[in-house]
Amino acid sequence: MQYPEPVAKLIDSYMHLPGIGEKTATRLAFFTVDMDADVVKNFSQALLDTKDKLTFCSICGNLTEHDPCAICSDPTRDQSQVVVVEQAKDVMTMEKMKDYHGLYHVLHGVMSPIEGRGPEELNISSLIQRLQKNEAIKEVIIATNATPEGDATAMYLARLLKPAGLRVTRLARGLSVGSDIEYADEMTLYKAVEGRTEM
Amino acid sequence: MQYPEPVAKLIDSYMHLPGIGEKTATRLAFFTVDMDADVVKNFSQALLDTKDKLTFCSICGNLTEHDPCAICSDPTRDQSQVVVVEQAKDVMTMEKMKDYHGLYHVLHGVMSPIEGRGPEELNISSLIQRLQKNEAIKEVIIATNATPEGDATAMYLARLLKPAGLRVTRLARGLSVGSDIEYADEMTLYKAVEGRTEM
Repeated sequence: MQYPEPVAKLIDSYMHLPGIGEKTATRLAFFTVDMDADVVKNFSQALLDTKDKLTFCSICGNLTEHDPCAICSDPTRDQSQVVVVEQAKDVMTMEKMKDYHGLYHVLHGVMSPIEGRGPEELNISSLIQRLQKNEAIKEVIIATNATPEGDATAMYLARLLKPAGLRVTRLARGLSVGSDIEYADEMTLYKAVEGRTEM
Repeated sequence: MQYPEPVAKLIDSYMHLPGIGEKTATRLAFFTVDMDADVVKNFSQALLDTKDKLTFCSICGNLTEHDPCAICSDPTRDQSQVVVVEQAKDVMTMEKMKDYHGLYHVLHGVMSPIEGRGPEELNISSLIQRLQKNEAIKEVIIATNATPEGDATAMYLARLLKPAGLRVTRLARGLSVGSDIEYADEMTLYKAVEGRTEM
């Protein structure tokens, strides 16, 4: 006795998602069986739409329905600053802060020798072209993750862009707001001391 | 700046699943954007199929593609025993044991005064009819969960079925195989002592 085929296939599909094993997938599949038909239909359509309706902005590489994306085509945004991020979702995270009004550039990854990914695999050449074409851009803020790969990519970009006379900065390292010193790791603490500010 | 609509809708869909909040849903949605188009298409279709292709067996209430289900229409199964379970997924769990070859009956829930669910909301009347029609059935094994609601439902069924001269049993309570006595809760230990067997 096996699961009915539609259930088995749905379990298999759920297992393609990160962090979802067979037990959770089975639970989700049986939950889906009990869901409203409308909700399931919307879910199914939403999955198709992510593939059919989404594209990458030809200017910044952000995920968008319409090319160029809403940020690139908004003339009220500060045209002098570009934040460089690893992934399209990082754009949304930065936007949630609500205090940055400049532009973005999405690398679609970081340099990673282990995975054989060098700078030519990233969305860097279009960044260079963009900076050459658009003289309004004065500062590139590198917002790659605070990981060894993110740091290496930031270093590479800084060396590439600084000679062109651009201001190149990156996000500060330090204590998370609301965190205890007790739980900060040594590297974070070291960076927090190094980057201490006047009161 | 908001998520592109297809992403926002997919996040919303993922959030309908149990145990998945906004953060996880967002992570899953962006993961989906990077998935192979074929895998996403299959996922989408699998969701639709659970609604379009699945039905409940008119005899036992199990989930099935074809009515009656594979178990009810299998003449080689032991027609004298019926295991009563709460949910269709419990049928699959019992079948994994590979040592029971009788029939099933799915209640589609348990009695729960708190949620206002009495015996008439459950798939009980069809069980009674089935037992009246089919004289081959000699034993009803109640396999509801070992929860207060499951126990109450088991008790109700036993009182209902025993007068008809049927053997009514339920699954033993005791230590999980491989577990330490140290970690057993008091009620489980009490049931294990009460149900102790000769060596």
